[in-house]
Amino acid sequence: MVMPAKARTDRSTVTRERILDAAERLFAEHGVYAVSNRTVAEEAGQGNTAVVGYHFGTKTDLVRAIAARHAEQVEQRRTEMVDAVEGSADVRDWINALVRPGAEYLAESGEPTWHARFSAQVMTDPALREIMSDDALTSPALRRIVDGLNACLPTLPLEVRLERADMGRHLMVQMLAERERALAEGSPTPRATWSDAATGLVDALVGLWLAPTTAPVTAPTKETT
Amino acid sequence: MVMPAKARTDRSTVTRERILDAAERLFAEHGVYAVSNRTVAEEAGQGNTAVVGYHFGTKTDLVRAIAARHAEQVEQRRTEMVDAVEGSADVRDWINALVRPGAEYLAESGEPTWHARFSAQVMTDPALREIMSDDALTSPALRRIVDGLNACLPTLPLEVRLERADMGRHLMVQMLAERERALAEGSPTPRATWSDAATGLVDALVGLWLAPTTAPVTAPTKETT
Repeated sequence: MVMPAKARTDRSTVTRERILDAAERLFAEHGVYAVSNRTVAEEAGQGNTAVVGYHFGTKTDLVRAIAARHAEQVEQRRTEMVDAVEGSADVRDWINALVRPGAEYLAESGEPTWHARFSAQVMTDPALREIMSDDALTSPALRRIVDGLNACLPTLPLEVRLERADMGRHLMVQMLAERERALAEGSPTPRATWSDAATGLVDALVGLWLAPTTAPVTAPTKETT
Repeated sequence: MVMPAKARTDRSTVTRERILDAAERLFAEHGVYAVSNRTVAEEAGQGNTAVVGYHFGTKTDLVRAIAARHAEQVEQRRTEMVDAVEGSADVRDWINALVRPGAEYLAESGEPTWHARFSAQVMTDPALREIMSDDALTSPALRRIVDGLNACLPTLPLEVRLERADMGRHLMVQMLAERERALAEGSPTPRATWSDAATGLVDALVGLWLAPTTAPVTAPTKETT
């Protein structure tokens, strides 16, 4: 019997989602490169171990697909928060818009989650990190946050702003992953909820952005004439 | 002809060092799990590809050996800096003692370096991260820095101190790795030298540690009676 096209598509969508879920979970717990496509297929309940390659191509493509699922969700919340603080001259408003969407998304995903640990690994891996950088560069809401922070701090030298934007990105991703790992392991966490963890991050990042700067000892490198 | 014991030992030491150098470089550039023992052996100029396992056992043991080489060097500088600021009530003194030893070690290693990128990956990998945590927990100088910061900030709630100590650790490792990667790729860096990069980190971390705290909305979880 030939399946109707609609049923085939539905089944294919379900299989894809199962693979993405299984891969994210395994990658978070064991590391992206420690896990084979075969293991992902088995964990996703697929008899045919070639199914991962069939649906997603290379491991990099699979990682990109997992990252994209979350990026959309977080971007939507971020856009709403940025709309709400548009024009604000308060650093804290912009830092809230940076930190809270990701933390809220984790809170609403219900326990356990895996994508914070997944994201932290992808961001640090030499071969995969561009996936996260691409997302960061193409997110209109993130660009608006950077612009908003710059407008609050017009006297901060450009190189310090670039540096602190990078610090904020790393701190957010790594600290959310730390908390997710502690929850998964049943270890104590400094904060009771994702929302409180976000408050801790916002407090710290406001301090980081407002910190006075010491002039560098070395002048920036220039072309010798 | 039988080699004298001394010559055998020397040759074995040279081989071990070559393997550690090759492994660190390959891990930094391609990722710890993307690189096989065979590739490490070839890069180290060893005809026998079993040599890595023979000298270092598992990949985890190899990673631990690479981490230990740097840990000793950095710990020595850290101890000197901590001795110099003992008793200080200035947060900046302690943050300097936290940040500068690693940055100075990178500066003195000469370009190119690989261990900042290596460390960032190990710290994020689910299977390897304990190697870095063990080091952090057993470093007497790091413990003295945490104690020194706590003494400067007696009113900061304990959970915030734990949180900010974690933030400092992540920020330092990830930002040094970012700079090392930019240097390796010939991309622009916000700062001209490792010392200036350290100044940027110290400024930011002083702000982070001194930032006012917002009381959490949720009370810490307690056992219900």
